[in-house]
Order: sequence, then C-alpha cells, then structure tokens
Amino acid sequence: MTDKAMTLYQYAASPNSRRVRIFLAEKGLSIPFIPVDLSKGEQHSDAYRAINPRRVVPTLVLDDGTAIGEVPAIMRYLDEAFPEKTLLGATPKDKGVIAMWERRAELEGFAAVMEGVRNKLAGLKGRAIAGAHDYEQIPALVERSVHRVKNFFDDFNARLEQVPFIAGERYSAADITTLVTLDFAKALELTVLPQHAALKRWYDTVSGRPSATA
Amino acid sequence: MTDKAMTLYQYAASPNSRRVRIFLAEKGLSIPFIPVDLSKGEQHSDAYRAINPRRVVPTLVLDDGTAIGEVPAIMRYLDEAFPEKTLLGATPKDKGVIAMWERRAELEGFAAVMEGVRNKLAGLKGRAIAGAHDYEQIPALVERSVHRVKNFFDDFNARLEQVPFIAGERYSAADITTLVTLDFAKALELTVLPQHAALKRWYDTVSGRPSATA
Repeated sequence: MTDKAMTLYQYAASPNSRRVRIFLAEKGLSIPFIPVDLSKGEQHSDAYRAINPRRVVPTLVLDDGTAIGEVPAIMRYLDEAFPEKTLLGATPKDKGVIAMWERRAELEGFAAVMEGVRNKLAGLKGRAIAGAHDYEQIPALVERSVHRVKNFFDDFNARLEQVPFIAGERYSAADITTLVTLDFAKALELTVLPQHAALKRWYDTVSGRPSATA
Repeated sequence: MTDKAMTLYQYAASPNSRRVRIFLAEKGLSIPFIPVDLSKGEQHSDAYRAINPRRVVPTLVLDDGTAIGEVPAIMRYLDEAFPEKTLLGATPKDKGVIAMWERRAELEGFAAVMEGVRNKLAGLKGRAIAGAHDYEQIPALVERSVHRVKNFFDDFNARLEQVPFIAGERYSAADITTLVTLDFAKALELTVLPQHAALKRWYDTVSGRPSATA
C-alpha cells in the first residue's frame, strides 16, 4: 500500500503492463488499476489519448495528474518515489549496470518478440508498430524476429552461466523484463531449449517468485 | 574535470557516441576518449568484445574496470555519480517525465533514423542491426523509416508548440537525444521543414549551445 495516490492504466494481456505489475508486486506496492481494453481499441479513445498521446499502455498517473508512460520511465519513477526496496540499484554503479542489462533484455529480447508478433498476427494488420501511427506489416520481419529471439536466448543463457541474475548477484528490473520476454516469446512458439540449462534454471527461479503471477 | 577516473570508448562519427559527448559537455565533465574505429570494424575485435560483448559504442569504463554500455545507462551512471547539474531530473516526478520523453525521442526518432540508415547503406550490407549478430538488410524498412521520421517531426513539433524544451520547462537529456536525431536524419535526406516552426525554433536554440559541437 502507499499513501501517494497513483493509478495505473493497463491491460491484463499486455506484456508491457505485466512488466510494471511485477515491478509493483516486488516493491510491495498496491495501487488501483484502470483497464484499457486493447482488444476494443480503447487506447485510441479521446480520453486515453489525453493521458498518453502515444496511445500505448501502461501509463502511471500521479495524484497531481502527471502522466508517465513508457515502462522504464514508470519503473524509474516508482524506484525513486519508493526507494525502500530498490529494483534499479542503490549505487551509481549498480544503477548503470542494471539499466544496461534491463535495456539489453528489452532491445534484443522483448522488442524482437514484439516485432515478430506485430508483423505476424492477422488482428494487427496495419498496426505493425504500436503508437499513434499506422504501419503495414512486413512479413520478412517475422522470420527475422524468430532469428533474433533465438540469438537472445543463446546470449542470455551464456550470461546466466556467469551470474545468478541478469544484472549480476541480485534480482532486479532486468530480471523482470527478461521473464516477461520469455513468456511473451511463446506467442512465436519459442521456448527455452534443453541446451539453455542456465537460462532454464534462472527461469524456474524467477517465475516461482510470487510477483510472477502479477 | 573529475577526480573519478573514467574512460569513454567511442567513435567520432557515431551518433550514439555524440549523445554521451554532449551529455558530458553539459555536465562540465572532461574524460579521456578511446577511439573505436567502426569504419575498420574495431568493435568486433577481441579486445573490445571483452569490454562490450554487444560490440556497440559507446562504452563507459569506470576506474574499477566496470563497463557500462547503452547510452541511457551511461547517462544514468553519470547523472548519479555527478549530480551537480542534473540532466535526468531532480525529483522523482521530473525523473519519470524526462525518462519518458528521452525514450520517446529515441524510440520514435533516433531508432527510426538508425533503422533507415542501416537498411540503406551499401557499406552496412548484412549489418542491418547493430550488435553481435548479422542480419540482412530489408529494403522495405528504408521507406518505412522515412515515414516514421516524418511522423516524429510532426509529433515533436506539436510537442514544442506547448513547451520550450522536449521534457518541459528545462533543457534535459531528452533534448540531447532529439538534437542528435535531427542531425542524424540528414543521412536520410530529412530536415526540418518550414511548417515545423516550433521544432525549428527549438533546434536553433539547442544547436547553439556550446555542447552541440561535442
């Protein structure tokens, strides 16, 4: 619970929303969720566009009406406003290293899965990139995305042969983004292979935390 | 100047390196630069891969050998270690809002230009995505990138009709990423049009700061 009034506009099936839900759960924060039904296109409503002109979820709205969109920005606000249990690091060095790994997980993992899904699903025709503008699907990107996600699995398996968690010795926001990426990758029929033993060991550990059901 | 020994591995013609150079200049920090000649493929050398396995520039190396890659992560470290003149915000709210706008500038502007350039230039054949893995160019992405960058100009011009700087009332890291994006877009033969009066006014202001030559 928190004494600072905040609300999170989000959607249950949205992987980006799940990144923030897990982050909140790990910090022990419970705040009201307001659903934005992407299946009905509610992100394009005038009401939601006034909150987030990029028309993506999630958005965190503060008690003074300030709207913060973009998952890393929401994580940044939450870790600064509620520093008790940090997920982005306590020292400048830890903050830099965690930011680096969280971003690599997003750029090379999460974004690759997203690109594959958005260019593949019939229901997302004309919506190959999330946001305010329409872009046609490019079929060649589906195949490339699968290739990219496989490389990501290889690279992060190698990383986890060296350290217990993505950013090093401790659980952090980088683990959240990587966990959501692995679950999201199932939409492309990609799962961790037996030869990715370190990645599998890590996945079993982090997906067993209570926050993983958020 | 700084009493904490750091070095920046970077390349003069790299737009991502320029984002960090401007950031350092705005903070009044002067640190040694070590060139990584991308035109000679030096980012793929064993020596550089030991520093940055993703094989991209820039990388900030701290006095204890810790290597921090990824521009937003480097910015994060620098603003935490040298908080005197913040470029990422002083309060949790400012930090969230600046992170949001810096990211929007990167996702919708910088990354769009990068995608266009990497899929267009003959010299980048087989290297359509920066990093450790090779990906073939997809010609359809060049046209889409031009479309995306034009939308970015429209959207950020609209933003700058409301506020003097990208993240609001003050110059921040979001202005740095946007400035580098506009200069980088010239590689796609895209420049600010006369109807983008607010964007042009902003560009003239920020490109006139001493840091812009960094």
